[in-house]
Amino acid sequence: MKQLLYTALLLFGLTTFAQTDADNLKKIYTTSLTNGMSYEWLDHLSNQIGGRLSGSLNAERAVAYTKEELEKLGLDKVWLQPVMVPRWVRGAPEFAYIETSPGVTTNLNICALGGSVATPLGGVKASVVEVMGIEELAALGKDKISGNIVFFNRPMQADLIQTFEAYGGCVDQRYAGAMEAAKYGAVGVIVRSMNLRMDDFPHTGAMSYGDLPNNQRIPSAAISTNDAELLSGMMALNKNTKLFFSQNCTQLADVESYNVIGEVTGSEFPNEIIVVGGHLDSWDLGDGAHDDGAGVVQSMDVLRLLKESGITPKRSIRAVLFMNEENGLRGGKKYAEVAKTKNEKHIFALESDSGGFTPRGFSFDCSDAMMVKIESWIPLFKPYLIHYFEKGGSGADIGPLKDDNIVLAGLRPDSQRYFDYHHAANDTFEAVNKRELELGAASMAALVYLIDKYGTETISSETKLKN
Amino acid sequence: MKQLLYTALLLFGLTTFAQTDADNLKKIYTTSLTNGMSYEWLDHLSNQIGGRLSGSLNAERAVAYTKEELEKLGLDKVWLQPVMVPRWVRGAPEFAYIETSPGVTTNLNICALGGSVATPLGGVKASVVEVMGIEELAALGKDKISGNIVFFNRPMQADLIQTFEAYGGCVDQRYAGAMEAAKYGAVGVIVRSMNLRMDDFPHTGAMSYGDLPNNQRIPSAAISTNDAELLSGMMALNKNTKLFFSQNCTQLADVESYNVIGEVTGSEFPNEIIVVGGHLDSWDLGDGAHDDGAGVVQSMDVLRLLKESGITPKRSIRAVLFMNEENGLRGGKKYAEVAKTKNEKHIFALESDSGGFTPRGFSFDCSDAMMVKIESWIPLFKPYLIHYFEKGGSGADIGPLKDDNIVLAGLRPDSQRYFDYHHAANDTFEAVNKRELELGAASMAALVYLIDKYGTETISSETKLKN
Repeated sequence: MKQLLYTALLLFGLTTFAQTDADNLKKIYTTSLTNGMSYEWLDHLSNQIGGRLSGSLNAERAVAYTKEELEKLGLDKVWLQPVMVPRWVRGAPEFAYIETSPGVTTNLNICALGGSVATPLGGVKASVVEVMGIEELAALGKDKISGNIVFFNRPMQADLIQTFEAYGGCVDQRYAGAMEAAKYGAVGVIVRSMNLRMDDFPHTGAMSYGDLPNNQRIPSAAISTNDAELLSGMMALNKNTKLFFSQNCTQLADVESYNVIGEVTGSEFPNEIIVVGGHLDSWDLGDGAHDDGAGVVQSMDVLRLLKESGITPKRSIRAVLFMNEENGLRGGKKYAEVAKTKNEKHIFALESDSGGFTPRGFSFDCSDAMMVKIESWIPLFKPYLIHYFEKGGSGADIGPLKDDNIVLAGLRPDSQRYFDYHHAANDTFEAVNKRELELGAASMAALVYLIDKYGTETISSETKLKN
Repeated sequence: MKQLLYTALLLFGLTTFAQTDADNLKKIYTTSLTNGMSYEWLDHLSNQIGGRLSGSLNAERAVAYTKEELEKLGLDKVWLQPVMVPRWVRGAPEFAYIETSPGVTTNLNICALGGSVATPLGGVKASVVEVMGIEELAALGKDKISGNIVFFNRPMQADLIQTFEAYGGCVDQRYAGAMEAAKYGAVGVIVRSMNLRMDDFPHTGAMSYGDLPNNQRIPSAAISTNDAELLSGMMALNKNTKLFFSQNCTQLADVESYNVIGEVTGSEFPNEIIVVGGHLDSWDLGDGAHDDGAGVVQSMDVLRLLKESGITPKRSIRAVLFMNEENGLRGGKKYAEVAKTKNEKHIFALESDSGGFTPRGFSFDCSDAMMVKIESWIPLFKPYLIHYFEKGGSGADIGPLKDDNIVLAGLRPDSQRYFDYHHAANDTFEAVNKRELELGAASMAALVYLIDKYGTETISSETKLKN
């Protein structure tokens, strides 16, 4: 009888718990969709501020704006965390053309890659060697490459369902193409934009020279997918095709910038910290609306949605707006460094840096036992069509926090349109749908709510602790 | 030993089956994403033809174009199925303004609802009675309504995750608002557009007068969501606010049009028919790219994707491009009528009429036993992030085929952006993402492949047959 009573109480208790959670998720989603702030904040960040490259005036304006908005939320703490960031500037607009015979030219849509050196004054003009990847360089050798421009033209693989996989399979051309081609005497590198769509936008993004001496560094730029097809086609028709490009970018001295942090201090376990974040910097061509204005405003709204939904966190929850994800990751590194110095206990970090599209779920960098715990929450997310709960990567900015105890996670929105806008001039506010953005913010808040309530301890880790 | 051998063979067989299915789905998706035709067809349908209202020249051009394209696919049969359709024409552009005092006017974005009568020559100007729904009319009564324009301003409910539910909760204002308001002596009806976004596009759509005599029919139009807020706000500030609108639409005599049908005849069970379809007509304001150009080109590509993937259907598979879904459903009714007359055995019908957005899954109108069978296929769809398999509605055009034996299904794409474009001037090709469209076509082909292979018989129905 006692046993039965106990079971009944347990079942009753469990049902009540689950009902509370379902109710709280409903409050969070309803608040986001009917009274969210993410879209309004993104409007300001995109249209009143715009592209926010590290070290730029706009980046500093974004720091000031987001700090001010966080302060309006009545959090327990809002502060700036200083961090030195690189400062690369694009300078006068790039210019490029294909020359099929002297004087017969066709202009191209081009942009310097972030971190690239400028061309020599007056630009560079040379014959073009088209390759599908870095591994082709060795076979061609210095003979065929020296004095020429190398054109990396491997497209993103269209039949991969998750477009980030297609990006991962191509981005080595952009990141390391110049570094590798320089070793064979190339005078410049042109990369097909990392874009699955055929259009006229060149997409910038980080590149690196590794430890190549300064005098061996060659300029590197991206052309639009349409122009990559054009160049390839013209080369096939005419062996004498030459390419000209000029760019005026330069790397200046590092400057001080900031991570922006807002915290709701935990009511029971204030020393256990949950981070939810995105990166405040963006590339300079568009307004950084999807990358990563969306992640910034969603993270800010997580704190607000919990409050508006009447939820008092047991643990401390921080929205961290990281500076300099795009070309240095200095903000993410600094945040982790300070956390370590202060011996802060971070139990969970969630990043949104995959665009403000309809959320499909999350990927987790955690133990199998934690994954089991997380999977027990899947039914709570079903009404919101959140179905993707898989092991995988999290986010660049929160990566440096990784240790044996923290659970890392990434929001996984629908990825089909992401690379239409990524690092390009069309990454603007108009490309973001209000509801899709708000559903992402709500999903993040819902996950943070559950992590805060149930913690990241698992049966096996508890057993481990006892042993 | 024999038993063991049998089990081994059975397991081997099952594994092989499942592997073949996984391989075939992969072929289908890869073909759609790398060599699909849906996007190119949609480009033509949207940009070379445009809006295709039943009875219009464009509708006839769309019939000719899709028939021609289906004929190029080398199907077993392509034919036109004649059907008489209503012909409503918009006429000269609508015009509307708010008048706060004589001569002080603000223009509104307005469009006549499909099926509405015109205003009297010179338009109608009257005071406005704002209501949130039809049920408020009775309380107001003839006293307050007679001689006025009724303004239905109930917004779509933003906190519903599936936007079609929000549409379902509002569309009675558009469909029956005029019919009901006329009973209380209203001289016109204005409806807030069925749109979750705040913007300047008025959204048209079907309305009906029921059996109201001709001389009691009042003109009915939609204004944009921004203008609905404006009108409501101005009325709150100024009790003397009047509204003027004029529209010049008219209902002409029915004309002959066609359903366009392409068939691959089944190799084993040619008399068992599977239908995959969308509707070829659209409203006239935009290009009907999402509604329902997407469903049309996806349905066409289903036949092609199966063929390109080397799949020979056992059953007959028809792509049916229905005419007149928007304002009459005559095509859907005709198709079912002919099928019944010819005693055709339709086992399955799938419609895509929810936009060309990332597919999330399908809803099914079927028995519990069939649902169990369908759910056994869920793992096959997981790599493609297709996760939604629920009981629910299918599609308007295939509805008339319903009987005890057919399984009906609807493609369920992500619905967040659908009502941004639905029935409005911005439903254009640019609003459709190529990959999202192609993933939808592939998902439909994958489901059709499985239905064709495994049929719609279930253990319980087989048992029934034997008894």
